[in-house]
Amino acid sequence: MVGITQLMEDKVFMAFASYTTIILSKMMFMSTATAFYRLTRKVFVNPEDYASFGKENAKNYSRVDERVERVRRAHLNDLENIVPFLGIGLLYALSGPDLSTAILHFRLFVGARIYHTIAYLLPLPQPNRALAFFVGYGVTISMAYRLLKSRLYL
Amino acid sequence: MVGITQLMEDKVFMAFASYTTIILSKMMFMSTATAFYRLTRKVFVNPEDYASFGKENAKNYSRVDERVERVRRAHLNDLENIVPFLGIGLLYALSGPDLSTAILHFRLFVGARIYHTIAYLLPLPQPNRALAFFVGYGVTISMAYRLLKSRLYL
Amino acid sequence: MVGITQLMEDKVFMAFASYTTIILSKMMFMSTATAFYRLTRKVFVNPEDYASFGKENAKNYSRVDERVERVRRAHLNDLENIVPFLGIGLLYALSGPDLSTAILHFRLFVGARIYHTIAYLLPLPQPNRALAFFVGYGVTISMAYRLLKSRLYL
Repeated sequence: MVGITQLMEDKVFMAFASYTTIILSKMMFMSTATAFYRLTRKVFVNPEDYASFGKENAKNYSRVDERVERVRRAHLNDLENIVPFLGIGLLYALSGPDLSTAILHFRLFVGARIYHTIAYLLPLPQPNRALAFFVGYGVTISMAYRLLKSRLYL
Repeated sequence: MVGITQLMEDKVFMAFASYTTIILSKMMFMSTATAFYRLTRKVFVNPEDYASFGKENAKNYSRVDERVERVRRAHLNDLENIVPFLGIGLLYALSGPDLSTAILHFRLFVGARIYHTIAYLLPLPQPNRALAFFVGYGVTISMAYRLLKSRLYL
Repeated sequence: MVGITQLMEDKVFMAFASYTTIILSKMMFMSTATAFYRLTRKVFVNPEDYASFGKENAKNYSRVDERVERVRRAHLNDLENIVPFLGIGLLYALSGPDLSTAILHFRLFVGARIYHTIAYLLPLPQPNRALAFFVGYGVTISMAYRLLKSRLYL
């Protein structure tokens, strides 16, 4: 089991593990936020979810609520951006990058995505959200570029 | 190539590989379920998908069907929960956890997500689906907590 | 740090890293395509996104546009299919497959998903998109099958 212990003793890999765990936990928080708004605003999408509230208000319970939709859009945007970070970041962390460069990439990405969520949920006026999006996007592209430049094998 | 062989000889990693493959295959099954309902109920979203059925019923073919939407919501919920499991679970499996603890985590997660799909598609009355969701959620948080507690490097 | 260097010197792993980086970059391009159509067709979903265009056309800016929705559906389909490839492909690459078999899998998947996007966005008549979908799906199932056959540990 030498291989595995060595992996987790690599500083770049440990940093990747830490930042990834943080940003994935943040993404999971979006599920809780959706559930919170659904319950406090009494807006549901499945009939079985509002069955215990009685049937007379069925139409009202299944309405579309802008607050809930906003959280869901932020969640989907997280998925669309964190999945590429997960894949490309893992391979980047394994490709032996400079420690401080790697940590700069991870910090910028995690910071940008947290700011993106804040800008989306409050909401902050544009271009706050757009900037947060493009910083996270740029970080991922920068890691992808390094990978393809140094390790291409097709 | 010693590093790679060692990785796949690690029992925790092999267990992670097995459970991940099972739960990702289950998630892929949701695509087939959507396609099945779209074809049997003749509900499509793209004009090119119902072009061969003739044009007179275009409005009918592009209606919103509750059965199809239910599968799609279950699929999206899978994505939102399996992606964090994939990232956090991989790092957790590499962090040298106790074998029986790790397998308990993986089993609970895979069982909970399969039960979640059943509860969503039948549907079962609440709180069946909510409980399945929170078991899977709790497992992922528990692995994230262990990672951040033992291996934080920011 | 021997373990990590060995990982990136493994040819199957390097090929997986290359193809994954390419297909994840392609998926990220979908975000740009959505933004492009939203800006050129002036269709937005959040009030803060069209605030600078003035308030008189609010209803028009927040309409549903078929072009934008098509890109978003292609993007979601990418997510639903690339996430399983990411997880199963990584584990498959680590399970010591034959190099040429592995590269055939990766090439077919990446080619099929790129063709899927083209078929979705143009759009091409069916069954172009359906075939592209099933090729990518089949490749992932084939890798999952190999993993479960040779390395099952439950």
